[in-house]
Amino acid sequence: MRSHYCGALRKEHVGQEITLCGWVHRRRDHGGVIFLDVRDRDGITQVVFDPDREESFATADSVRNEYVIQLTGIVRDRPEGTINKEMPTGEIEVLGHSLIVLNKAETPPFQLDEHQSVGEDIRLKYRYVDLRRPEMLAKLRLRSKITTAIRNHLDGEGFLDIETPILTRATPEGARDYLVPSRTHANNFFALPQSPQLFKQLLMVSGMDRYYQIAKCFRDEDLRADRQPEFTQIDIEASFVSEEDIMSITEGMIRNLFKETLDVDLGAFPRMPYSEAMEKYGSDKPDMRIPLELVDVADLMTEVEFKVFSGPAKDPKGRVTALRLPKGAELTRKQIDEYTKYVGIYGAKGLAYIKVNNKDDLEEGLQAPIVKFLPIDVRKAVLERTGAENGDIIFFGADSAKVVTEALGALRCKLGEDMDLYTCAWAPLWVVDFPMFEETSDGGLTAIHHPFTAPSCTPEELKANPAAALSKAYDMVLNGCELGGGSIRIHDQTMQQAVFEILGISEEEQAEKFGFLLDALKFGAPPHGGLAFGLDRLVMLMTGSDSIREVIAFPKTQSASCMMTDAPGEVSSKQLRELNIKLRKSATEE
Amino acid sequence: MRSHYCGALRKEHVGQEITLCGWVHRRRDHGGVIFLDVRDRDGITQVVFDPDREESFATADSVRNEYVIQLTGIVRDRPEGTINKEMPTGEIEVLGHSLIVLNKAETPPFQLDEHQSVGEDIRLKYRYVDLRRPEMLAKLRLRSKITTAIRNHLDGEGFLDIETPILTRATPEGARDYLVPSRTHANNFFALPQSPQLFKQLLMVSGMDRYYQIAKCFRDEDLRADRQPEFTQIDIEASFVSEEDIMSITEGMIRNLFKETLDVDLGAFPRMPYSEAMEKYGSDKPDMRIPLELVDVADLMTEVEFKVFSGPAKDPKGRVTALRLPKGAELTRKQIDEYTKYVGIYGAKGLAYIKVNNKDDLEEGLQAPIVKFLPIDVRKAVLERTGAENGDIIFFGADSAKVVTEALGALRCKLGEDMDLYTCAWAPLWVVDFPMFEETSDGGLTAIHHPFTAPSCTPEELKANPAAALSKAYDMVLNGCELGGGSIRIHDQTMQQAVFEILGISEEEQAEKFGFLLDALKFGAPPHGGLAFGLDRLVMLMTGSDSIREVIAFPKTQSASCMMTDAPGEVSSKQLRELNIKLRKSATEE
Repeated sequence: MRSHYCGALRKEHVGQEITLCGWVHRRRDHGGVIFLDVRDRDGITQVVFDPDREESFATADSVRNEYVIQLTGIVRDRPEGTINKEMPTGEIEVLGHSLIVLNKAETPPFQLDEHQSVGEDIRLKYRYVDLRRPEMLAKLRLRSKITTAIRNHLDGEGFLDIETPILTRATPEGARDYLVPSRTHANNFFALPQSPQLFKQLLMVSGMDRYYQIAKCFRDEDLRADRQPEFTQIDIEASFVSEEDIMSITEGMIRNLFKETLDVDLGAFPRMPYSEAMEKYGSDKPDMRIPLELVDVADLMTEVEFKVFSGPAKDPKGRVTALRLPKGAELTRKQIDEYTKYVGIYGAKGLAYIKVNNKDDLEEGLQAPIVKFLPIDVRKAVLERTGAENGDIIFFGADSAKVVTEALGALRCKLGEDMDLYTCAWAPLWVVDFPMFEETSDGGLTAIHHPFTAPSCTPEELKANPAAALSKAYDMVLNGCELGGGSIRIHDQTMQQAVFEILGISEEEQAEKFGFLLDALKFGAPPHGGLAFGLDRLVMLMTGSDSIREVIAFPKTQSASCMMTDAPGEVSSKQLRELNIKLRKSATEE
Repeated sequence: MRSHYCGALRKEHVGQEITLCGWVHRRRDHGGVIFLDVRDRDGITQVVFDPDREESFATADSVRNEYVIQLTGIVRDRPEGTINKEMPTGEIEVLGHSLIVLNKAETPPFQLDEHQSVGEDIRLKYRYVDLRRPEMLAKLRLRSKITTAIRNHLDGEGFLDIETPILTRATPEGARDYLVPSRTHANNFFALPQSPQLFKQLLMVSGMDRYYQIAKCFRDEDLRADRQPEFTQIDIEASFVSEEDIMSITEGMIRNLFKETLDVDLGAFPRMPYSEAMEKYGSDKPDMRIPLELVDVADLMTEVEFKVFSGPAKDPKGRVTALRLPKGAELTRKQIDEYTKYVGIYGAKGLAYIKVNNKDDLEEGLQAPIVKFLPIDVRKAVLERTGAENGDIIFFGADSAKVVTEALGALRCKLGEDMDLYTCAWAPLWVVDFPMFEETSDGGLTAIHHPFTAPSCTPEELKANPAAALSKAYDMVLNGCELGGGSIRIHDQTMQQAVFEILGISEEEQAEKFGFLLDALKFGAPPHGGLAFGLDRLVMLMTGSDSIREVIAFPKTQSASCMMTDAPGEVSSKQLRELNIKLRKSATEE
């Protein structure tokens, strides 16, 4: 139906007769002729209809924005002075000969360039209009290019694309499952997978050797800004591999992806132990674009009279740390109050600081309410340790280690963003040497990754001191976002049972939930490991989007509904009967 | 952990030190040395351990089938007389120097070469063992190769890979939906998609122009041998296209796929109107490998005394047809009885036939109980029309058109298979010119494809005589299987509403179920169309498998359960409460 895409026309086409199909992006009536900007997937071309051709002129006169048209005409140079260097097709225009309206369009609920001023709900309700915006089109195109590049890379590395089930059993990731009532097995339910974790491990036990899948995963959680009920994971697993192998394969994949799609060379990814990440950056996914570091000063504070500092400094579970912001002495009282409020989100009860006006005058050169509580030698040691210069500000966190780490880690990122401290556009990083477990609020232990992660020690060592055990897990971090996480898995049944025990999973529960995995480990399981990337977040970062909703064709809202189709919806009582379920009465009726 | 895959070793590696990882496929003790056949994804290599190396010999002595091992050794020529030309690695062996057991294995529930003698349930319960069979591995590898080839082809044709939601609204395909209770919207349910049909149409309204997705689809139906609750569809849609465009793109894709993965040249696909397919082959998906045709003879039978023939011959809804099987006169009474039983499955009340012993003797040369009921001139006309030769048999179907078509169409395929009449290995075909609607048992009309299929006429013509309207639909058929089906879709709101009306969908129901589609058609919908292939069936055909379960890593049984994970399973009452549903009492309790 067409000879060219609109966006493809250039000077070299001048003189050719072409046929275009697309949408009327804009219609102007100027000097007795009609200009139509015609838009398709590839771009926009200006088409001119003059009154000499009565029929097509009349049609051109009748069209409105977003009409779908087909036209034939001759490509010609734009007249001097009307060339538009901003547009790829800006040197030419098409003189229209014939014009057919393929479909009319009512005035759309919002104009494409007005999307900023309409709410996201309207954009999502009329998503098919919203997606017409060249910016949205570009995002979905890049997403497609990204998955293609990833698939080609993994295919080249010998990975097999294998599908795992969507209708499956409750998975052990710990979030809430979406459930699907079974009709053929009354009172039983499928769960939608939170990840294909166990299936990919079983594929390794099957000898598939190298597996990948771009897999839909599901979590019925209350949604944060960057979460969706269904999301997409680049899921990778290989056998007879070490951490090094998986990290090298996946780092190569991401490096290659950035080179191929964005022409960005990410270089080799540095590695950082989890402990260092938490200590220096207050995060297990440090944003390495920001040249700020936390510096612990608890040892300096144990004897000061200021209880806010000395208390946590003396508490083995406390932490006192300093964060120096170069040139931060310029911050106003109001700005500091804002940051105090900000760290409050993370549980910090305040935000102590020192402005360094003159570091050589320890009596008068330091400005802050807390200075008076700190002996001169402590002031000196703090300045030295933080490397403070005149004009800097030093923030302090003093509380439980958890609160200080989270609050100052977040403050570091906030300052980096507010002050535009970024030293580079892309800062990838591997975080390694995670602990196996962390303490739960009730004093038990929970797996930091998942219970199939292999520890770096023997089962005996693990049982003797589980809290100290490190795991063979690794996270890939980019610009402070976790792109993906993975580990070498447990392939030994004894080790798997040891981990289950430490997590307080009874033998009965093990058999009930993971019997098939424990069975599989008995029948010849190879050493194996893998990694899973969050595709939506990766695309979000690569397209510079604010939300993963921007890179998903038909996303759900924060309350997990689809504005366009109105899903979820009511179903008939016949359907419920077939599934052997009924609705509960609402709370008020009961 | 290894230098080579087992299957990769050849004569050229002789003299090299290599490291292999894999499973002990077989262990033999022969002439004082131990032979291990070591298996990995790529094949099997024979490794020899001799007693000179005590440690590795002792380890080799201790291993059992399916142990996971790592070994190092030197590749050497096999001694004269022990070369195995059947094995790709059969010219060499490895002299093992060191051997490590990476994981032990209990005796597997079945030996890999014994799978035939164990039930499919056991194979599915221990699927990770079953998948180790080189034959299963090869199937999943080919599946991966197929999806990769398809993706690369469509990518090259400018199709964008775009994901559509799994948690969505009840879809209109007509089968039963799987439902997912919503926690955040009490008493509402998501449905899992039976296909991404409406989403892909909306992507066309969005201007995506060319979309594809290898998409999971779901149907909660009672399963036949070649159905699964979840299946995979190669889903394609394009804008500003005709039937020719879609057929040419997808035919090219399949032809390219066969060439690339099987080295088979399918040639150009012939096209056949639906009416011809039903008339000559008794099927909308004729198996063109079989050189048998139905020949209608109703016009010859209207006046015969034999009511079984004359009744349907005079009934406008009846059909009388003949099927000649060359050399079929050799069929025994018992065989003919079997075929009579077979057509009974399709509702035929009997299977009349004539054995042609001597076509020149119309009195005595034809053998069959029915011959006496047919006048000589009718006998003559039947022989002429069917082209019968001496030694042939002619079967007859006489009943309602529906029963005759289905029964004789099925008989044709059965005879083709039983007599091995296939004239070629692959017979692709396009079936075109489908009717828009077919009659339901209650005299209404139902869409043959789906209600979004465009008719070949105007809305007015459609309304005037819907039963006669043809659609712009096309099915791709291979060897009697429907590989895929598609159509040009309705892009005009008036036409869409006309079709809904004919289908008896009230305006209220239209708004409730398809409001977002009707809306979208108002705001500038381009002409568009597409096609969807059943990937599982395609892979089944291409791998020569009997069932789609053979080409799915973790399939469900016919009662829609997973033998391995025991899904579906019970869930806690807390989970049900959160979803605001409860279980009904069982029928007996109520």
